Amino acid sequence: MPFQTLAEFRDLLGRMPAPDATAIAAATARNGQLTKPPGALGRMEALAIWMAGWQGTDKPRADQPQIVIFAGNHGVTARGVSAFPAEVTVQMVANFAHGGAAINQLAKAFGAKLDVHALDLDRPTADFTEQPAMSEAEVVAVLRKGFEAVDPTAHLFVAGEMGIGNTTVAAALAAALYGGTGWAGRGTGVDDAGLARKEAAVAAGLARHAAVLSDPLQVLRCLGGREIAAMAGAILGARMARVPVILDGFIACAAAAVLEVATPGALDHCVAGHLSAEGAHGRLLERLGKEPLLSLGLRLGEGSGAALAIGVLQGAVACHSGMATFAEAGVAAGG
Amino acid sequence: MPFQTLAEFRDLLGRMPAPDATAIAAATARNGQLTKPPGALGRMEALAIWMAGWQGTDKPRADQPQIVIFAGNHGVTARGVSAFPAEVTVQMVANFAHGGAAINQLAKAFGAKLDVHALDLDRPTADFTEQPAMSEAEVVAVLRKGFEAVDPTAHLFVAGEMGIGNTTVAAALAAALYGGTGWAGRGTGVDDAGLARKEAAVAAGLARHAAVLSDPLQVLRCLGGREIAAMAGAILGARMARVPVILDGFIACAAAAVLEVATPGALDHCVAGHLSAEGAHGRLLERLGKEPLLSLGLRLGEGSGAALAIGVLQGAVACHSGMATFAEAGVAAGG
Repeated sequence: MPFQTLAEFRDLLGRMPAPDATAIAAATARNGQLTKPPGALGRMEALAIWMAGWQGTDKPRADQPQIVIFAGNHGVTARGVSAFPAEVTVQMVANFAHGGAAINQLAKAFGAKLDVHALDLDRPTADFTEQPAMSEAEVVAVLRKGFEAVDPTAHLFVAGEMGIGNTTVAAALAAALYGGTGWAGRGTGVDDAGLARKEAAVAAGLARHAAVLSDPLQVLRCLGGREIAAMAGAILGARMARVPVILDGFIACAAAAVLEVATPGALDHCVAGHLSAEGAHGRLLERLGKEPLLSLGLRLGEGSGAALAIGVLQGAVACHSGMATFAEAGVAAGG
Repeated sequence: MPFQTLAEFRDLLGRMPAPDATAIAAATARNGQLTKPPGALGRMEALAIWMAGWQGTDKPRADQPQIVIFAGNHGVTARGVSAFPAEVTVQMVANFAHGGAAINQLAKAFGAKLDVHALDLDRPTADFTEQPAMSEAEVVAVLRKGFEAVDPTAHLFVAGEMGIGNTTVAAALAAALYGGTGWAGRGTGVDDAGLARKEAAVAAGLARHAAVLSDPLQVLRCLGGREIAAMAGAILGARMARVPVILDGFIACAAAAVLEVATPGALDHCVAGHLSAEGAHGRLLERLGKEPLLSLGLRLGEGSGAALAIGVLQGAVACHSGMATFAEAGVAAGG
């Protein structure tokens, strides 16, 4: 078992592997010999070399991605923070199982394996405005569930989520980790009154748990939720297996931020898949130092923005690993 | 034969089909019933509906794209406008044939058919600073070659190019069509002196052909080149067959601009695949009123930026055409 307590999880964050410097050097050399003007593939070149470092090879692959969706329910929905009823979480999990959701189509389009983990949907986390969302045993259980959900043979990993109310949880996490206000947004489409209720819930949560705000793992335990903790566990699981990760939107990035604040550099194996339309996502990406690959106004969750970005990485890796060198092709280099 | 003279080509521009309003209405209705909050797929929703209109169905497809690369050589290379020797055009065509170029890998990654047309590479167009790049017979021949290169059964079409010196030709076209200066850029990587030579060639070309600058088709004939005219012909060919087009970078957009200036609305079946790193591409996209799907700093040509964007449209269409509706999935709609 990788960890049994939050302290052991914290220890693991101190023992994360670095990328393979030899593979990075070899991939950089290869990139310079490919039949194109230097730099002509723009950011695709850096992406392929980054993939090479984590996969430990000068010819990385991206044809076997894995997408895992974690679903959770949240006591804070009692505060009227969502435009949808909490039953939708379980209904959407059924939709995932039947192949009817957006993420099913995107997984198929990009050849990704899709796994769905419903996390105690009939037992929502506690309302974080009143008490800690989870006990230590509960948060460790879902961190481990996430950690163990990663297929170490995958070429790329995407963590997605479903959970009515979870943009409020993510906003509370961002506010706790980085300070400031205005982290709450429209989510699935609340009106002005709903947005005010979200902001009030975030403020109440931070006031309730003021004593733990300096400890990112306690912040995660106290504010929740299960699917967010599972994503954090999965992102660390991918790191330990050297599987590169594409981060999805605001909620996935809030999960990632817990790790980054706990241990700077914890997201070196992650790229931002997209800039979501959820208000504070851009601000969160800036805090994480991540430039999104796509900016198409998605705000669905389910890992959908990251899944769409799989295509970009597949293109980058296909060029890098498949192109001929100038010598192989008998093409004159520029000067 | 679709046209035998520039006048007949111009006539055809006046008889372009519109998108299917019934399919657009049906696709819009379908989009509103899919299992996601309204608007949560952002720009992907509009893209799918746009595809529906051109394909004439409420469930568009994108799994059979076609990429066609046109290659040409340019007399203006005598002016020292490229960092690469002109022989590289034919060498890269051989690289395409052997599957070693970036576009080969991208075509494979997104399941696209790839065709390559080398256009009289041993007979460069005339140096446009001295005389018209092409005769009417020559430009009509390559317009037709492009027009006929489109597979009318393709779900999506990408026109790409290879031609040492062709960023100078594209800059001259943009300057002729839209006025102003500063359309020349670094291309495959010229230094400051090379950039100055490009700007001088553009200015000399516009001065030489000042009498025809108000006629976009004569501008195309006089400034060239063959691969650019072929792309213009292909974009019109796709329009006549109602095949949606993804525009590539600066050179492909210069070809497209000839059509748009000749007949506003000629690019309604086109989406901008990406924002290239070639200096003036953003300015050209603004003139065309097109918002790019990707912005990853590519400046390779070969249709590579548009090819990468195939993945975005495949994702959009997969979601639209494959997702379950609220009724089918038994999911409660928001409110």
